[in-house]
Amino acid sequence: MKIRLTASALALGWALAVLSTAPAAAEEGMWTFDNFPIARVNQTYGTRIDQAWLDRVREASVRLRGCSASFVSPKGLILTNHHCVVSCIQELSTAEQDYVANGFLVATREEERACPGQTAEVLTEIVDVTDQVLAAGAGLEGAAFAAARTAEINRIQDEACAGDSRFSCQVISFYRGGRYGLYKFRRYDDVRLAFAPEFQAAFFGGDPDNFNFPRYALDAAFLRAYENGQPVATPNHLTWNPRAPQAGEPTFVSGNPGTTQRLLTVAQLERLRDQQLPLQLIQGSELRGRLLTYAASGDEAARVSVDPIFGLENSFKVWYGQQQALLDPAFMAGKRAEEAELRERVAADPALQQRIGDPWTEIEAAELAARDLAVPFRQIVTAAGGGSALYGMANAIVGVAREREKPEGQRNPGFDAAVARTRTRLLEETPVSMDLERIRLGFWLSKTREYLTVDDVRVRTLLGRESPEGLAERAISGTRLDEAAFRAAALDLNVEQLVALNDPLIDLALRNADQAAALQTEWGARVGVPSTRAAERVAQARFAVYGDNQYPDATFSLRLSYGSVQGWSYRGVEVPPFTYMGGLFERATGAAPFNAAEDFLASRDQIESRVVYNYVTTNDIIGGNSGSPVIDAEGQVIGAAFDGNIHSLGGSFGYDGSVNRTVVVSTAAVTEALRKVYDQPRLLRELGVD
Amino acid sequence: MKIRLTASALALGWALAVLSTAPAAAEEGMWTFDNFPIARVNQTYGTRIDQAWLDRVREASVRLRGCSASFVSPKGLILTNHHCVVSCIQELSTAEQDYVANGFLVATREEERACPGQTAEVLTEIVDVTDQVLAAGAGLEGAAFAAARTAEINRIQDEACAGDSRFSCQVISFYRGGRYGLYKFRRYDDVRLAFAPEFQAAFFGGDPDNFNFPRYALDAAFLRAYENGQPVATPNHLTWNPRAPQAGEPTFVSGNPGTTQRLLTVAQLERLRDQQLPLQLIQGSELRGRLLTYAASGDEAARVSVDPIFGLENSFKVWYGQQQALLDPAFMAGKRAEEAELRERVAADPALQQRIGDPWTEIEAAELAARDLAVPFRQIVTAAGGGSALYGMANAIVGVAREREKPEGQRNPGFDAAVARTRTRLLEETPVSMDLERIRLGFWLSKTREYLTVDDVRVRTLLGRESPEGLAERAISGTRLDEAAFRAAALDLNVEQLVALNDPLIDLALRNADQAAALQTEWGARVGVPSTRAAERVAQARFAVYGDNQYPDATFSLRLSYGSVQGWSYRGVEVPPFTYMGGLFERATGAAPFNAAEDFLASRDQIESRVVYNYVTTNDIIGGNSGSPVIDAEGQVIGAAFDGNIHSLGGSFGYDGSVNRTVVVSTAAVTEALRKVYDQPRLLRELGVD
Repeated sequence: MKIRLTASALALGWALAVLSTAPAAAEEGMWTFDNFPIARVNQTYGTRIDQAWLDRVREASVRLRGCSASFVSPKGLILTNHHCVVSCIQELSTAEQDYVANGFLVATREEERACPGQTAEVLTEIVDVTDQVLAAGAGLEGAAFAAARTAEINRIQDEACAGDSRFSCQVISFYRGGRYGLYKFRRYDDVRLAFAPEFQAAFFGGDPDNFNFPRYALDAAFLRAYENGQPVATPNHLTWNPRAPQAGEPTFVSGNPGTTQRLLTVAQLERLRDQQLPLQLIQGSELRGRLLTYAASGDEAARVSVDPIFGLENSFKVWYGQQQALLDPAFMAGKRAEEAELRERVAADPALQQRIGDPWTEIEAAELAARDLAVPFRQIVTAAGGGSALYGMANAIVGVAREREKPEGQRNPGFDAAVARTRTRLLEETPVSMDLERIRLGFWLSKTREYLTVDDVRVRTLLGRESPEGLAERAISGTRLDEAAFRAAALDLNVEQLVALNDPLIDLALRNADQAAALQTEWGARVGVPSTRAAERVAQARFAVYGDNQYPDATFSLRLSYGSVQGWSYRGVEVPPFTYMGGLFERATGAAPFNAAEDFLASRDQIESRVVYNYVTTNDIIGGNSGSPVIDAEGQVIGAAFDGNIHSLGGSFGYDGSVNRTVVVSTAAVTEALRKVYDQPRLLRELGVD
Repeated sequence: MKIRLTASALALGWALAVLSTAPAAAEEGMWTFDNFPIARVNQTYGTRIDQAWLDRVREASVRLRGCSASFVSPKGLILTNHHCVVSCIQELSTAEQDYVANGFLVATREEERACPGQTAEVLTEIVDVTDQVLAAGAGLEGAAFAAARTAEINRIQDEACAGDSRFSCQVISFYRGGRYGLYKFRRYDDVRLAFAPEFQAAFFGGDPDNFNFPRYALDAAFLRAYENGQPVATPNHLTWNPRAPQAGEPTFVSGNPGTTQRLLTVAQLERLRDQQLPLQLIQGSELRGRLLTYAASGDEAARVSVDPIFGLENSFKVWYGQQQALLDPAFMAGKRAEEAELRERVAADPALQQRIGDPWTEIEAAELAARDLAVPFRQIVTAAGGGSALYGMANAIVGVAREREKPEGQRNPGFDAAVARTRTRLLEETPVSMDLERIRLGFWLSKTREYLTVDDVRVRTLLGRESPEGLAERAISGTRLDEAAFRAAALDLNVEQLVALNDPLIDLALRNADQAAALQTEWGARVGVPSTRAAERVAQARFAVYGDNQYPDATFSLRLSYGSVQGWSYRGVEVPPFTYMGGLFERATGAAPFNAAEDFLASRDQIESRVVYNYVTTNDIIGGNSGSPVIDAEGQVIGAAFDGNIHSLGGSFGYDGSVNRTVVVSTAAVTEALRKVYDQPRLLRELGVD
């Protein structure tokens, strides 16, 4: 799943205020729609937010795969970020017709093209199911606990959606297990690309400017939701307002922040800092070096590498920023003080102490086990395949065959639905770069050998007597998984039949399956389950001590953030909140990635230089919020959030309103570009601004 | 400078015993030859080490650039590691005649080939100059302090060598400034390659087996020192003994450990852990990915990349192991306890407290400044050029021109000698891969922009309106610095004349010169000088509290380590001390890097399978010791140290005799290979084993 949010200044220091877990500081918070602090916001900003306002915004808010978006016309037109759809644009492109480089510019609705695998989900209902979920695990341990929980969650989901494919139902954990919510979505599976600017317009400044501001990026694109071949009617869309934002005006961001880790315990943060992030940074860097060098080897290599490199560099910057935050002694001292306070207050109340126990120490023990298991768990389970799309398919096919061989009662609940979803995914005809597949698979095998050592039995199981590179070459060149029909047929085979296929990539996935399952079981028993059970009691302790006036960690579920248009100052430097379209041409050097897009250069004389291009607000968002509508007090959309500034990266662990900023592309700039650069009268009409 | 030592098991845990700075544990220590614990060793091992024994070993010990070695015949024949001379072998090779792949196998002395830039130095005299050096800085601060120290050190060196080019004189800091020693060396500048096995024999198992054991590597080579065109007479060489080592027998390693950091304060270790090592690991990984992908692009690319990739992967593993040691909470707790104890004992003695003051707090302040300065200091000063050989030359030429323009009194002391050394180096005709130059220079520029940000004035000074890749391409393609004559001529020019050359690489070095000088000044004033002054007092505190029975941190100066042939056990696994030549063929899979070398395969039937190949000892060594003779109680050479095991990597910060091991290639195996694999009767004769 893509969790994307794109903001650069790695060398800057980190000055994160440590939030108290008690009542949130002004403007902090990724609030659920059923617990939004309406009164506080109206009092602070003089706004008139009410339930009807919230419902309207919710109904117009769209969850994409890994991103956020909103309906902005009555005919299912969806505003999101270019970087949220660039992988679709890349898939629709060929060496001859490169929509990434040239933009996706069509004159009629009929020319809109389906984005394979994309979905648009609108949240229609929230039901608290905390009691049912917590009850399901009571009295059980280890794998039995995990199975009971999963079964209950699947039961709730299945019952709520009742097999109606127009909906999706998801039980989501909030407050690290303090609450469980059933989220029901109206779901659209036919999502088409309606408009995308040139990559160089959307991503001007590239990785160096990513997570940076001032910024000059048209990181916007339009999709459209279809059903039965027709555009979906969306009367509850947001009104498009192409006006310039005003300094200080209140702004609301509705979207799906992916993950924050503000409620983790100190022991969890320390392992993140000492083990997980270093490993991600180190391995990610080497893969980055491999991909960049490959991309420089030719035009086609460069073309197919655009999205993978963007994704990796974006993640790298996020991890680096997170690591810097966790390495700040003052920040960690704050986290320690906060945890100590909560533990003291629990200890001071015998009844509460009795109910909560000592989940912090339980988590410490789980983290100690995790330190031993994490490297093999990563290499054999979570990072298996190294991002090779074909290996992912092989692994899915093998997983289904293995599960099917179990007696019915022992199969994963929801198995049939999972198979159906897998089939749909396997049938999607998406282009696969065999070069990139070789790079990714070979990289995974090579790092697995490096980190587990050549004499590890799991490494020997994977490699036999082959080298990582040799095996990757043989498996990718020899597999037939690049044919959708072969994949679909393979999904119906049992393990024995899969073996008989003699497909080298399926064979590799088969070889890894037992050892991956063993590690998953061990991780669950020693880390996963104990952490889940303990975290639930930490959350209960927080509710007991600080009350309900809290927002949960981000879980890629719909949230509303409030804030205002504001620049910031850091180490004596004032950063104003706006950039203007004319500024693009001043910043452009002509050398990539600081070359202005060709269509922008061609339209330079027509573009109004004083149109606000990008701006920053104090809204509290994180990766996954990309594409979120930025909404004014009247409920109209005035921009799309596409990034955070460099200080926002510490936002994973805490929000500091003095420097943490959301970066937005204005509706004013999008409108100006549709009119002057990309000549899109039909979209301007649909947005009501022709 | 190459500091090489090559041992793999990144995923292993770390169990470092924390050494007390008080009397060293048995077998711990990199002892100077003027403070070797003769009595303790003789008592422990029943040996009869005396001053004559020490003198003989010292006179046979050779310091190479970045490595160690020994004389093993009366005619200047030098034993070292293959990996210490692989860059020479690479330089002597061409696409047609690849000595790296095929080995350097010649039948006569006349065919031996000079290794450009290599030197062989034999330590002849040690003089304590502590009082003179410490007196020179007294009463001064900042730049004046640094200048006074440098001047005094240069004066001592110049006076000792008196311009005699057959000697080199170096004032070396010991105990982090607790002692200063004048080391006088007999120096040989004409060092020629006499023998090298195939790379695949020397480095069987490649990076995966590096820092690993059991091991099957013929990491040995022979050089020869010449003077006036003739082999140097070396009557005081070590006797070559081709016998097998015995389990438990005492072993001595004489060589030049490069750097240890066992005496750093906690504040210094923490910045190393939190800032310096992470940055090295992350940037090193990306460069590794770039080089590996480049090397896979063709045969010639693979050929020229062998040594750069070996060097980088070796360094990466060292940094990773160091980082794991510093991330071990128990290890750091031990360091903290040790520091606290020393501080308490100083505080308990008013006179001592008066003399020592609080250098620990002074170092904390310097480290705080270093946290701010380190990233720009690295990118603009220490890592400038990214390892591009041509940029290094440009920078040297620019540095000389800038220094020459200063009034004579303000010039660096020893300027003329430095210019002469630079001229010699610039005149060396070594092949340069323009592809690798582009990769390195482009990587440096790109990371500098990434870490300092695109809007940093120093980045703008470097790049102007160019991209890192574009500038690297233009500078490397356009420079004439690949011509030795051009380099020599440029060295005589002043800055104005250099500018007039319009050489794009010299221009780049000129653009960086001012900002690099400014950062060096600031670093010296805020970090370097305060740390030096404080560390001297920490060292004095240690002497006062614990006495003189200590060894200093490694400083790439001659040391003697004692120990014995021993395997180890870790987490219940027993590792025996020996491998045998027959084991090579069992471990070989045929897939690189686990393919046996061709000449070995061809000679398989002749090779005696029970000859000890590699073995491990408890000697305390570190990178820079590579090539060191392993000497028995009789003073005969029985192997060459070429690696440490994975546990040795924490040896930078502390020695744990239960698991820290030196990895050795036996003289028995080298003899067997000279006889059966490489057919070198002349060398066998010279070694007295024909």
